[in-house]
Amino acid sequence: MEINWDERGLVPAIVQDATTGEVLMLAYMNAESLARSLEIGETVFWSRSRRELWHKGATSGNRQRIVEIRVNCDAAALLVRVTPLGPACHTGNRTCFYRTLDRGAIEP
Amino acid sequence: MEINWDERGLVPAIVQDATTGEVLMLAYMNAESLARSLEIGETVFWSRSRRELWHKGATSGNRQRIVEIRVNCDAAALLVRVTPLGPACHTGNRTCFYRTLDRGAIEP
Repeated sequence: MEINWDERGLVPAIVQDATTGEVLMLAYMNAESLARSLEIGETVFWSRSRRELWHKGATSGNRQRIVEIRVNCDAAALLVRVTPLGPACHTGNRTCFYRTLDRGAIEP
Repeated sequence: MEINWDERGLVPAIVQDATTGEVLMLAYMNAESLARSLEIGETVFWSRSRRELWHKGATSGNRQRIVEIRVNCDAAALLVRVTPLGPACHTGNRTCFYRTLDRGAIEP
């Protein structure tokens, strides 16, 4: 299966708790980080800010064991189903999506 | 709350079935599509290929009623929890993520 990498060579990866169904985070993978994820069975992303491979939880211990990776119909997004070993969010929250959108202030 | 729109003025929006927890699709919103989504209570995206607003299911009837919108820690991704009125995928599948990644052929 070919992945439709974007113009930056990245694909968005949705991370979901395989047991609870909770959506934990959205990050990006390049070909190298996807290959490395498959190799070690844990999530490895491409950090767009640091411009380097990012083995999630390598220092904090909050790694994510991969249960399954799914790809969408146009192969332009991944759904990574995981068993999380700790919180996904750098804030300490279990999920990065811990806030409900304030319906004001959505101007560009 | 400010949204961290990307350089194209878009934010990725993960769509999840609010009842089952199933991840249905990933699409993109701009400020106008997000405002319109909030206004009508159904998902409206920005179609990057057609370069126009895309009211999901407007012709097929497979609309998505919005239950809640969450935003992630850095306000660069949305999680839209919905009640789907039909399949999310243009293939007729309930979710766009109906395939498991073939572990071969992931080269860029």
